[in-house]
Amino acid sequence: MKTAAIIIIGNEILSGRTQDTNSNYLAKLLVERGVSLQEIRVIPDDHRIIEDVVYEEASAKDYVFTSGGIGPTHDDITAEAIANCFDVPLSIRDDAVELLAMYYKNGKKDLNEARLRMARIPKGAKLIKNKISGAPGFVIRNVFVMAGVPKIFEAMAQEIILGLGSKNPILSKTLKIFKTESEISERLRNYADKYKEISIGSYPFNNSGKFGVEIVIRHTNRILLNKVFNEILIDFNEPQTN
Amino acid sequence: MKTAAIIIIGNEILSGRTQDTNSNYLAKLLVERGVSLQEIRVIPDDHRIIEDVVYEEASAKDYVFTSGGIGPTHDDITAEAIANCFDVPLSIRDDAVELLAMYYKNGKKDLNEARLRMARIPKGAKLIKNKISGAPGFVIRNVFVMAGVPKIFEAMAQEIILGLGSKNPILSKTLKIFKTESEISERLRNYADKYKEISIGSYPFNNSGKFGVEIVIRHTNRILLNKVFNEILIDFNEPQTN
Repeated sequence: MKTAAIIIIGNEILSGRTQDTNSNYLAKLLVERGVSLQEIRVIPDDHRIIEDVVYEEASAKDYVFTSGGIGPTHDDITAEAIANCFDVPLSIRDDAVELLAMYYKNGKKDLNEARLRMARIPKGAKLIKNKISGAPGFVIRNVFVMAGVPKIFEAMAQEIILGLGSKNPILSKTLKIFKTESEISERLRNYADKYKEISIGSYPFNNSGKFGVEIVIRHTNRILLNKVFNEILIDFNEPQTN
Repeated sequence: MKTAAIIIIGNEILSGRTQDTNSNYLAKLLVERGVSLQEIRVIPDDHRIIEDVVYEEASAKDYVFTSGGIGPTHDDITAEAIANCFDVPLSIRDDAVELLAMYYKNGKKDLNEARLRMARIPKGAKLIKNKISGAPGFVIRNVFVMAGVPKIFEAMAQEIILGLGSKNPILSKTLKIFKTESEISERLRNYADKYKEISIGSYPFNNSGKFGVEIVIRHTNRILLNKVFNEILIDFNEPQTN
C-alpha cells in the first residue's frame, strides 16, 4: 500500500485564525484510492522549516502533499523552499505564464511582478492546473504542491487524485452498539488481537441522549471485511438501523 | 516567548472520518497566553510513532499537548506510549481511581477492568481533571496528555491554560483592503522587510462578491503594533468598517 503525508503550510492555522479543512478533504480522497495517510503536519511560513519538513517526509513516504504559500505575497515562500529542498533552480516558466494570462482579463498586460511570482516553478516540475484560479500548483518528484485556499486546493486535489494509489480503496464497515466503550472494550480487544491485519476503531457517540459506540473496521479486502463484520455483528447481537 | 507543539493522535483523523477541531481550539487559547505554537502533527494510534513523535517534540518545544488515545479501548495506547517515552512505569493510581469512582453512579463497583485502564498514570505525572468525564488527563514533564473527545479536550485545556505562558498575549490587528493580493503585495513586502519582528499575514476574502485582502499584523507589544498599523492604514488609505 502506498503511503502519504500532508503538510499544511501557514501561520494562520497555527494562530487559530483559520481552521484547516484541506487535510480532511484530501484524507477522504486518499482512502478511496487505497493510499495510507500516515501523518498530517501543520508548519509555519518559514523557509528553513518548510525545506526540512518536506525533505524529511518526501524521503519517508511515497507521496507528499503540501497546501499553502504559493500566492503572490511576501509570505508565499513554498515554491522557493521546495526548489531549495531538491536543489533545483526556480524560475518563471512560460507554460505557467500562459495559464495566468488566460485567467486575467487583459492577458499578459495584467501580469504585474506580484502575479508573475506565481509562475515561478522549480526546474523539472510538472504543473497542476485548476479550474478556479489561473495560478498552477506543481509536482516535483513525489511532492504535490497545492494552494491553501480551500476551493483551489480541492480543485487541484481532484486534478491529481486519479493518478495516485490504486483502484483498491480502503473499505470500511460501521456497526452501532448502544453500550459504553468500557462495556465492550474487552470483546473488541479480542477481535483486534485475532485479526491484526484489520484496523478496528471505536468511536463513542451521543445522538440526542442515546449513547453508544460506533465500531469501524477497515481493510481493502471486501471478503475478509464482511467475514469479520458478520462475526462481530452476531457476537454483539445489536439490531442495526442502517 | 514560550514555544509549543500539538500532537493529535488518532486513525480517525488520518482516514478523514473525523475533522480535528481540538488543535484550532487550543491554538486560540495559546495565542491569548502569548505562547508560540510552532507545529501541529496528526499521527496514528501506533505505539512506536507516538513515543518517537512525543519525544522529538518534547525535546524541542517548551510545551507539548497531546489529544486522543486515553479512553478504555484497545486502541487507546497513549498513556503507555508516553510512559515508555520517558522511561517511567505506568500503573493504576488511587487518586485517578477516586475521580473515576466519583463519576460512576455506583462508585468503585462500576469500575470494571476497561474503566480502570483510564486510571493508569505514568509515575510522577500530575492529573488534569475535567468537568465532563471522570477520566483524567495528566501532565508529565512538559507534556500535557488530554482526551480526544472535543468537549472533554476543551474542558481539560481550560483547566491548564492559565498556568501556561504569560499574561502577554500575542495581539493582532486586522485591516481590510478592497484590492487583490497581487496589487498590494509589493507594498506589504516593504512593511515586512521594515518591521521584521512583526508577523504580517495577508488573507484574501470574498464577502458576497466583494473581493479583498485582510492584512493581519501580530505582536505582543501593543504600542509597536499600533504604530505599524497606523502607518499601513494611512498608506493604503482605505476606510475601515470595523
